[in-house]
This record gives sequence, C-alpha cells and structure tokens, in this order.
Amino acid sequence: MATEAELKAAGDKYVPKDYDPALYKLRHSLAHVLAQAVVEKFPQAKPTIGPPIEFGFYYDFDLDVNPTEGDLEWISNRMRQIIKGKHPFKVREISADEGRVLFKDNPYKLDLIDGLTKGQDEYGNASTDAPTLTVYQQDTFTDLCRGPHVGTTGDLDPKGFKIQQVTGSYWRGKSDNKMLKRFHATAWASGEDLKAHLARLEEAERRDHRKLGRELDLFANEAVFGSGFPMLLPKGATIRRILETFITEYERRAGYQHVFTPDIAKKELYKISGHWDHYKDSMFPPMDMGEGGSDDEELCLRPMCCPHHIQVYKSKARSYRDLPIRIAELGNMYRFERSGVVGGLSRVRCMTLNDAHLFVRPDQVKDEIAGVIRLMKRAYADLGITEYRFRLSKHDPLNPDPKKRDKYVDNPAMWESSIQMLRDVLTESGVPFFEADGEAAFYGPKIDVQVKDVMGREETLSTIQADQHLPSQFALEYKDSDDTPKRPVMIHRGVISTMERMMSYLIELYAGAFPVWLAPVQVAIVPIGDRHFEFAQKLADALLDKDFRVDADLSAKRMNAKIRDAQLQKIPYILVIGDKEMEANAVAVRLRTGEDLGAKPVPEFVALLEQANRSRTLKLVP
Amino acid sequence: MATEAELKAAGDKYVPKDYDPALYKLRHSLAHVLAQAVVEKFPQAKPTIGPPIEFGFYYDFDLDVNPTEGDLEWISNRMRQIIKGKHPFKVREISADEGRVLFKDNPYKLDLIDGLTKGQDEYGNASTDAPTLTVYQQDTFTDLCRGPHVGTTGDLDPKGFKIQQVTGSYWRGKSDNKMLKRFHATAWASGEDLKAHLARLEEAERRDHRKLGRELDLFANEAVFGSGFPMLLPKGATIRRILETFITEYERRAGYQHVFTPDIAKKELYKISGHWDHYKDSMFPPMDMGEGGSDDEELCLRPMCCPHHIQVYKSKARSYRDLPIRIAELGNMYRFERSGVVGGLSRVRCMTLNDAHLFVRPDQVKDEIAGVIRLMKRAYADLGITEYRFRLSKHDPLNPDPKKRDKYVDNPAMWESSIQMLRDVLTESGVPFFEADGEAAFYGPKIDVQVKDVMGREETLSTIQADQHLPSQFALEYKDSDDTPKRPVMIHRGVISTMERMMSYLIELYAGAFPVWLAPVQVAIVPIGDRHFEFAQKLADALLDKDFRVDADLSAKRMNAKIRDAQLQKIPYILVIGDKEMEANAVAVRLRTGEDLGAKPVPEFVALLEQANRSRTLKLVP
Repeated sequence: MATEAELKAAGDKYVPKDYDPALYKLRHSLAHVLAQAVVEKFPQAKPTIGPPIEFGFYYDFDLDVNPTEGDLEWISNRMRQIIKGKHPFKVREISADEGRVLFKDNPYKLDLIDGLTKGQDEYGNASTDAPTLTVYQQDTFTDLCRGPHVGTTGDLDPKGFKIQQVTGSYWRGKSDNKMLKRFHATAWASGEDLKAHLARLEEAERRDHRKLGRELDLFANEAVFGSGFPMLLPKGATIRRILETFITEYERRAGYQHVFTPDIAKKELYKISGHWDHYKDSMFPPMDMGEGGSDDEELCLRPMCCPHHIQVYKSKARSYRDLPIRIAELGNMYRFERSGVVGGLSRVRCMTLNDAHLFVRPDQVKDEIAGVIRLMKRAYADLGITEYRFRLSKHDPLNPDPKKRDKYVDNPAMWESSIQMLRDVLTESGVPFFEADGEAAFYGPKIDVQVKDVMGREETLSTIQADQHLPSQFALEYKDSDDTPKRPVMIHRGVISTMERMMSYLIELYAGAFPVWLAPVQVAIVPIGDRHFEFAQKLADALLDKDFRVDADLSAKRMNAKIRDAQLQKIPYILVIGDKEMEANAVAVRLRTGEDLGAKPVPEFVALLEQANRSRTLKLVP
Repeated sequence: MATEAELKAAGDKYVPKDYDPALYKLRHSLAHVLAQAVVEKFPQAKPTIGPPIEFGFYYDFDLDVNPTEGDLEWISNRMRQIIKGKHPFKVREISADEGRVLFKDNPYKLDLIDGLTKGQDEYGNASTDAPTLTVYQQDTFTDLCRGPHVGTTGDLDPKGFKIQQVTGSYWRGKSDNKMLKRFHATAWASGEDLKAHLARLEEAERRDHRKLGRELDLFANEAVFGSGFPMLLPKGATIRRILETFITEYERRAGYQHVFTPDIAKKELYKISGHWDHYKDSMFPPMDMGEGGSDDEELCLRPMCCPHHIQVYKSKARSYRDLPIRIAELGNMYRFERSGVVGGLSRVRCMTLNDAHLFVRPDQVKDEIAGVIRLMKRAYADLGITEYRFRLSKHDPLNPDPKKRDKYVDNPAMWESSIQMLRDVLTESGVPFFEADGEAAFYGPKIDVQVKDVMGREETLSTIQADQHLPSQFALEYKDSDDTPKRPVMIHRGVISTMERMMSYLIELYAGAFPVWLAPVQVAIVPIGDRHFEFAQKLADALLDKDFRVDADLSAKRMNAKIRDAQLQKIPYILVIGDKEMEANAVAVRLRTGEDLGAKPVPEFVALLEQANRSRTLKLVP
C-alpha cells in the first residue's frame, strides 16, 4: 500500500501540461469545498464530477431544485467558513468493493467506479492509468477523486472565488442521460487575482467581437446559412477589402504571384496530399456528382490550398533559375467543425486565408523564411499588433497517447532536419522564440506567431512551415544547373491569418474603434439644418470620389443625436456643417473621442485625412 | 391524301425558330446528296440520320471502313455532279408497312419507323407530331424524311459546301449502341459565303481563349480539380484582379454596398427561394453534415446569390428613406453541368459573378434600372466592347412543349406587369432592343445584353431583372412614409458578367493583345548584356513600386530572342537597355506591334505608361 504522501504526489501527474499546478490544485480543492456546501444546503443532491477548467472549475450535481440567488450566497458563505476551518485534505486508497459500499446511494459514483475498474477515466474514455481508487476527504465531505489537492482548506483564499452561474448539463455529455445542474465558479489564488480576472472579463465582454459585430453592423450569423457561415455586412466587408488590398499589395511588391485556384477538387487529390488520411475528420463530406458513379467524380471542398498551389507549380517545367516561386491566394478553405463549437468570426466553417506557398531550392529556404518573417513584422506593425511571440511548433513522438503521437507523417529524418532548419532561421533572424511539442502540421514543423487575447489566452495568428513531405508526395521537381532533376522545398505561410480570424482579432484589439485606414466609415458629415444638406451631400460625393469612406447623415434627427450616433459607430471624424462652415467652405471637425478640433478649411481636412489614411497611423491627428 | 405541294409545305414547321429557313433547307438537302454519294462509294453503308446543324449538317452511317482523304474527295466531287444534275426532291407519303419493306435492309430506318409510329421523333424522344411517314427522293436516293428540302439539287451551289471530318458517334447517342461514322460538313448558299465562314473559323481558332490561355499562361484546366474548375495562373489572376478592382470601384461610386456572403446555405433557403423546385438540376448535390441527420444540416453550394443578399436586406428593419439599397458582391456560384459540356473559361461549374441586388421602392424601379444601364454602357466602353444589343427576355406561355412552358413561376399578372415595366425602361432609356420568348429567369423577365463572338454566335454578357417574386417569397418589407409595411421590388443585375465569362470574351476580343490597363504584364525590360542587368532590375523595381506590371528578362538569351518572346506574350511595351540608354537614364521603347518609338528618358516613358493606364485607352501611344 502506498503512503498518504505517495498517494498525494501521484495526483500531480493529472495536472495538464500548460496548467499552473498551484492553480489546478486550489481549483480542484475548491470544487470539493463547493460540493460539501451544496450537499449541506441540498442533502438530496448527488455529486458527480467537478474538474478544474480554464479560469476556475465546475461541479455537476443530480439536483431537482433550481438554486436561487439566496442559495448561492448561502453556499458561498458556507464555503468561506469551511476554508477558514483549515481542514486537511486526507487521501486513502480504497478497493472497488469498499467504494461501492461508501457510495451506495450515488449511482454516478458507482458508475465511475465501474468505469475505473474497466480502465476508463471519469468521462468514460479509455485510459491507460492503473485502476487505483482513492478518496479525498475534507471536514465532513468525502469524494471519489484522484487528486491533486492543496494541503488544507486553509491554503485557499476565502475571497479568491466566485460562483458565476448554474446551468444544465447531461451526465457524461450524452443527451440520453439525465440533465444535471452544473455550478460554475471562477477561482484564483487571491482576492486581488479574482478582481483582476473579473475586470478582464468585463473588458473582454466590452470588446467581444460578436457584440461589437452586431452594434457596429459588421457581420451577422444567419441560421439559414448553417452554423459557422457568417456573412459580412457592408461595413465588415469594407474592413475585409482594406485588409485584402493591404496585404496583397505588400505581397506583390515582395515578388509573390497571386492565383485563383478552385475551392473544389477530386477526392483523389487529397489522397495524394495525405489530407484524406490525416485530416478527413475536418473535411466536408464529398459530393458524388453521379455521372456513372466513378470515383473521379467525387468532389471535395478543399480543406487547405497547398495541393492546389502545387498544381500551379506543376503547370510548367521549372528550372533552378525560376526559383523561388511564390504563389499566393486569398484562398477559401472549408473545415468541418461540430455546429456547437462554431460562432462569431473566430471559429467558422469556411475561412479565407492570406495563403501562400513558396517553392524554393534547399539553399534558399532560410533566406525565404527570413523574408516571410520580415513581411510579418511589417504587416503586424501596420495593423498595430505589437504584442506577439514566435513559437517553434513540433510533432510529439514521445506522447504516451497514440492519438496525439501518431497523427503526424512517419518520417523521423524529415522531422529532425526540418525542425533544425526552422530553429536555425529563428536563431539567425534574432527573434526570441520558444518550442512546443504537439503543435506541428501533420506533414511538418512550423513557426507560429502567437498573440494573446484580452483574457490572456494565446492563439496563433500567423504561421510558417518548411515542408519536404508534400513535394515528395507530388514528385515535384526543378532542373538544376547541372541539368539533373532536384526536389524543391515548399514553404507554407499565412501572414495576416484568415480574414475572419484577423477581423475578429482586430475588432477586439481596437474595441471597434479602428484606426482611420481600417475604419469602415472614416468620416461622418452632420449638416445642422436642411439648408446645409446640399453642401453636405456635395462634400460627401467629393470625398467618395477620392475613395474615402463617408456617410452623410441627411436624416431629420437633431445635430447632437447625429453626433452621438457617429460616436457610437466609432467613426473617426465627425464634420459638422452650419452656416459659418458653408460660407467659409470649411468643416467643424470633431473626433470620435469627443475632442473638438474646431473649424478647418475643407482642403486642410482632406490633407489631414489623406495623411492619416496613407500613414496607417493609430493617431486621429497624425 | 395530301398533295406533294402540301407535303412539302408541311416540312416547313420543322425549321427551328432562329434558323434561316433557306439555309436549313439547303443543308438538309445537301445531307441527302452526301448520303447518295456515300452509298455509291460504300454500297454497304447504311444511312441513319442527317440533320442540319449550326453552320452545316452531319450524316451518320453504319460503315465499317474508315474513309480516306481520297474517298472524301471522291464523295465531294460526286456531290457536285449530283447537284449539277438538277434532280428534283420528290416527296410521297408512305404507310409504316410500305416503309418496312422499302428499308428492310436498314435496321436503323426500321427502328425510326417503329419510333415514329409510337409517337417518337427521330432521336427517340416523345413527340406530339402525327405519325405521317414521308420519303424524299432525289436522283437514285430515297430517304425516310419529313423535310423540308429545296426544289431540286440545282438550287444548291456546288461550291457552297465542304466536308470537314469524319468522327465516331453512337446510334441515338447511347454508348451501348453501335459506333457509327459521322460525316461533318459546313454548307452555305454560295462559295463566297463558304469562304467567309472558313475565314471566320480560322480567325476564331486564332482567337480561341483556350489556345491563348495556354500560350499566354493565363489559366489551366487540371483534371484533378474536376471538370469545369479552371485555375487562373498568375497572369490570368492579374487580369481578374484588374477587372474586379475596376468594376467594384465604379459600383462604390454609384452607391453600391459590397458584402461577403457564404457560398453555402441550408437546403431550406433554396426551397423558399424556389431554386430547389425550379433549378435543382443545375445545383450540386447537398452535403449531409451528419450531425443527427436532421434536415437543417443539409448544406448546398449556392446556385445564385439572390437568396443570400436577401438575408442582408433582412438583417435590419428598413424604412422608405433607406431605399434604394444596392447590395453587391463578387459572388461565387456553383452550377452543375455534365462534365462533357464544360471547358475553358466560358463554360465552368463555379463562377464568380459581378453580382448585385437592388432593393427599391416601386417608384424607384425605372430610375434604378436606367442607372444600371448607364453603368453598363460606361463599363463596356472602358472594356472596349462596342458591339452589343439589348434583349427583353420573356417567359414562354404559348410554347407547345410543356417543359419549356412550365419552367417559370405561375403568376401571369406578375409576368405582365414586370415585362411592361422593363419595356418602358428600355423605351425611355432610348436604347434599341428586341424581345425574345423563353429567355427569362424562372422568377421573372429580364433585360439581357447580347454580344456576338467571332463566329457570329450571340451570347449574354450582362443582365438586369426586375423581380417581384422573391420579395414575396421572403416576405420582404420596408416601412413606408405612412408607417405601413410595403414590399420592395428586387432588381438583379450583373454588369460585367462572371469573371470567367468576361475574361474568355476579352481574350477572344483582343486575341490576347490586351489594352495597357488590362495587360497582365505591361512592360518587358530587355537588357542587352550582363552589364545592363542592374539598371534593368532597378527600373523594374521602380515601376513595380508604382504598381505597374513589369517583367525584366535577365536570362542568358540574346536580345532579339527576348524581344520576340515579349512580342509573342503580347506585352504592350518592350524597353531595350544598352550602354546609351543607361548613360542617359533612358529606354529604347518598342511596341508589341513591332513599331519602334526610339529612345525616351525614363520619366517620359513613365508618364506615357501612366497616361495609357489611367485613361484605359485602347491605343499603345495615347
């Protein structure tokens, strides 16, 4: 039999990679404290499971009453009492039979014990863990649990948690099972940490791109298009157009050649590329075109553009002099995701990637990747994205989980040389980077550019991959200077991500108040009275003719209401026009911030606007 | 019994609408003359059917030898003899039994007789014609035939036809049947007409966009993408980008709002719009997303953008003040066509339409359509399309064929008022137009802009439709000035067609020699020797920085070869750089036509290029 210390230490291995162990333990322990309080309040409640999650924990109970606000307050107060009681978390090993006696009144725990003895984890999935059963106890409450936990409830901060809500959830997530009550809580090491989190949450809600998308008329999700197919309304479409023009112009000047390749191909293309074997679960179902039923008429929506750009490369014989060949496209890609997980612009089923594939000689790989990194830095600076870091994303050959280990192509030599190549480029480019296992593409390692959202969550915006796998699958060649055929290396890269992801990121980054060059409407014109309408319309037309984005508010509303509307729409410049302005061919310039720049002659304002637009500055007065 | 004159006259009704009856008769008669000559040359040949087609006729024989060039010459000569014999075409009515005796050695004619008595036409399709059997005879040759024919072979011009080729074809087009020999011939009223046709044919081959697409590296059709999914290579993609920028800029200035809507929607959207009922055969098969098998997860690739733009309209409450709302998109549409009929850029399965839908009050319809006509005329002028005519395309309520009659929505009052509205706009716009039955969209009449290709074939490039059907299907509304809900009219319009169709049209219009503003490469730089490479590259970079499209030929080829290459690529300007030019910061300018403009200082050439580009002129020296 293991000692208590050994049993407690054994729990540490259940802390997920990338989860702070101290936070994990305190959240897990608070879940037990919450369970004790809930059972005291509702003796009929049957605890099921209560894991730590991002920012806190939940606990599911079989409970047929709906807790009131008052109940939750009682539970919170009782939790604080238990914490102050400094009760130790005691662990002991039990046999399955003991467990069945101990939890004889709780069918969920009995179900868990059955699963554990059959080698399943608490969610019913196959697990490689040995079926050692343990129970943890604090004060009067005992739970079937593998840990880990803090030493005593005194290690918890009574001000460090908050019960947020109670929702419904099915036992084991299956809708055939009984609906349970899920208590959600956020939990932190201290009251200050909790406060900071709640402030971030509030800020995230304020910046939430779904909320701003509605308020600013940027995009909409219509059920009739299916889940994960947002449409961009005129203002959102304008932002996308600006982004597209911006990045493709940079690319043209950097020697990229843009193409249009089909969003569709025969299934066999993805069999050659390996997507069908390694990525099928993320692909849309093939369409049988029903012309005789032969396999060649099974068409797939493309999951990625790489096999398509390979066809561009193959459309001609290539010589060493032609390389590097940089093929770019604003390419649509279709990704099957369950309808429940998609939403807004950040998680969609069809996305348009700022995609490119560089076909290069082995001696050009480093220079080309360095060139991509330079392009990224420039684009990010223009977009105002200043906080990001580089990640070298590798495969995961040592992962004990075969699913996570074996989803990569099996070619150790290729992995080793490709990873080393990327490591060298990063080092030589002088950019700081970190390495991460299990984040590679299935066909090779990559460099990811990681940004953080308001909540501090890291996500990948851009990516660079050096790929020796696909060139070999498609037998790509160029004729070298000695007339022998050689195989090019293929660099996959996206600079400003998918249009959808970048837009959602920028909406949140700017909380909808875009810099002038990105703002869907740059200028609002507010005539004070009817007799200023004609001047306002003429000014609007003149600005439109210069391709500025302008809205003249010719409604019957009063001036102050019009100004407020324009500010709510976060339009950078608001031009008020009355008698004085008309006479002087001037405009009274207000900023969306409320600042008043006073009257300016029209040409002077146009110059200011031109300067803000062209310089891509973040300032309203450049 | 009918008289011979009556029988002959009865044949006239078989001349298709839009086919010149005189040409039809002479081609039909020549088919019989050819059949006589073939049977004389190959007595074992069994004639089957031989109808007039566009530009000529064919005749299919069961014949197991491959005719040589010499055989075809013999047959042509013999045809001329028969023509000169001035043999009358004699017709007589026969019973089915007589026919079965007369053609007892020809199983194909027996098959035809069986079909005709069962009410089928000669292709085996159901026919409403009364089963009167007739035979036509000239000289020694008798054929089962319903006419019509010319009076005698003397009415044919012995120099007016040409046998073009012999290919294989299955009896009744079914690959289970025997392979026949099809003799193809082109036939005209005179030798001069034939000559003119052959010249047009040669010109059409020279301008064929598929041939030029390959030669100029504009696009490619890769089998692996499936039939009808061409990819645009960098140069073709450049043309498309220019076209897109060009038309969307015009549209923005004309008050259009661009959107991005999904290429996909749930099947139920197309049930509401009527596409599922009226257009299903042209749609791609739905994709079952397999999340519980409920109907709401059956997704379709969109056949048209209209129901999608309706969602944009519906995303907000609309007032009479908001209208007209002009929603535009470069929208992908998927159209199922049999793999055999698609090809090049002109007939594809996915196309990107310069699409827009205007939601207008009834009192705005005429003005808005007039505005679209103005936009079209401007765009066409810039594109150099000068020969086109307007067609008022109507439904076909009097067509005896129920398939052709009933494919339109059943709402006579709507059709009448919509047709009258379009007729009024066309009249008031002062543009000449003609009316045509059976060319409407299923939901309403339209105005089509018809252009002719090199062969004189008419096709539709642009279209305007005034639609009261879809607004009603989707219950669209706006709040009128009296606060009551009203229904808007929806105007569907494409100005420069699909990108694919317009590109194929322009490639053929210009035979690949695009005006400067559309040319994928505008400037070729040809340094004479290695020591001019650096200057050449710098000049190229400077032009690229101004967003001109430029290729510096730094290969080891000789100057004349480089110039010839650039001319073959139809690059408007070829700049030769030697010692003199480098010294003087000048370029020796040659045009793709071979004309030599002599040396020009670099700034002077840049000004010329800027002027040609901005003015969209067709001239190389503006």
